Amino acid sequence: MTIAEISVVPLGTKTPSVSQYVARAVKVLEREKDIKYETTPMGTIIEGDLDRILAVVKKMHEATFGEGVARVLTTVEIDDRRDKTQGMKEKVDSLKKKLQG
Amino acid sequence: MTIAEISVVPLGTKTPSVSQYVARAVKVLEREKDIKYETTPMGTIIEGDLDRILAVVKKMHEATFGEGVARVLTTVEIDDRRDKTQGMKEKVDSLKKKLQG
Amino acid sequence: MTIAEISVVPLGTKTPSVSQYVARAVKVLEREKDIKYETTPMGTIIEGDLDRILAVVKKMHEATFGEGVARVLTTVEIDDRRDKTQGMKEKVDSLKKKLQG
Amino acid sequence: MTIAEISVVPLGTKTPSVSQYVARAVKVLEREKDIKYETTPMGTIIEGDLDRILAVVKKMHEATFGEGVARVLTTVEIDDRRDKTQGMKEKVDSLKKKLQG
Repeated sequence: MTIAEISVVPLGTKTPSVSQYVARAVKVLEREKDIKYETTPMGTIIEGDLDRILAVVKKMHEATFGEGVARVLTTVEIDDRRDKTQGMKEKVDSLKKKLQG
Repeated sequence: MTIAEISVVPLGTKTPSVSQYVARAVKVLEREKDIKYETTPMGTIIEGDLDRILAVVKKMHEATFGEGVARVLTTVEIDDRRDKTQGMKEKVDSLKKKLQG
Repeated sequence: MTIAEISVVPLGTKTPSVSQYVARAVKVLEREKDIKYETTPMGTIIEGDLDRILAVVKKMHEATFGEGVARVLTTVEIDDRRDKTQGMKEKVDSLKKKLQG
Repeated sequence: MTIAEISVVPLGTKTPSVSQYVARAVKVLEREKDIKYETTPMGTIIEGDLDRILAVVKKMHEATFGEGVARVLTTVEIDDRRDKTQGMKEKVDSLKKKLQG
């Protein structure tokens, strides 16, 4: 199981507001039943199998194009840990425990 | 008002578990009364004045060193919008509205 | 044609030196004949078709595991421009022209 | 000595071409005599003291605003190694040696 953060940024939109384009990318995730995700103020965090994550990255990236958007910057950070199974929830719980300790 | 995501990564730790070091960086924020923050599975998102954010980035970065850590990778993504005041909450709300529309 | 920067970071190595692991990832590129790349002090920049780039990201990520490495952070930034064909060289040339202007 | 990669992205520009704005940020570095830097197809890499780097990040970020740009995304990745002195050149040389080995 892998955790990844994805952010899509459309360039050359007429206004600094880009949430309508970001929404198109996030909507991709609503249709991917086996992918767990959460949106944050800076991106979308997903959890799943690495191949599925890369496939979803491509779909989110493609969904940001169109309606006048001809350039997209997509950033993906993949955190892949293989010594134990750790999802988004476990990772945050582990940090919280250390913060209290 | 600026929003930023910060992630600190200590290298050369003996195990792949790094939450104890990340916790030292996040504890810096507990002492910064004027900075609003939230932790996510992939980093910490903070909101505040740009100068304060850069000062806090430095403190979090420094706090990750020590106890055997001699190399730290710190990533900061700054989203600075000056045509309107938009904090973490407003940014997520704006996306949610677009997702429902 | 898409440009992307990839960086792989192994966690839990015994020392802060990680170039031996990074080298395994970069060696993947030496075998991919159709991918143009250059290494920088902070990552590897590649140019090619988006699907090929994502496939290469996966191979580079996988190549970083092993020899005691059980956790890898891989960051990919994709710059995909579809209004004109612009490779790594053209992008740098365009900036240089603006710097002189 | 610290190495950092900085990338500035203006949002809401009229066209997908943003090199004129990026050039304003890079020009900041031409005036900072003690900072070594190189531009890549994906960002600018600088080497120097951490405090100086953060000060320069702020100047580059600010220089990207103006001429219709009201929102800037700035990403900084800091690689700070304290067990030995390693600049941009030494870091690339270390990787090259491993690639040949």
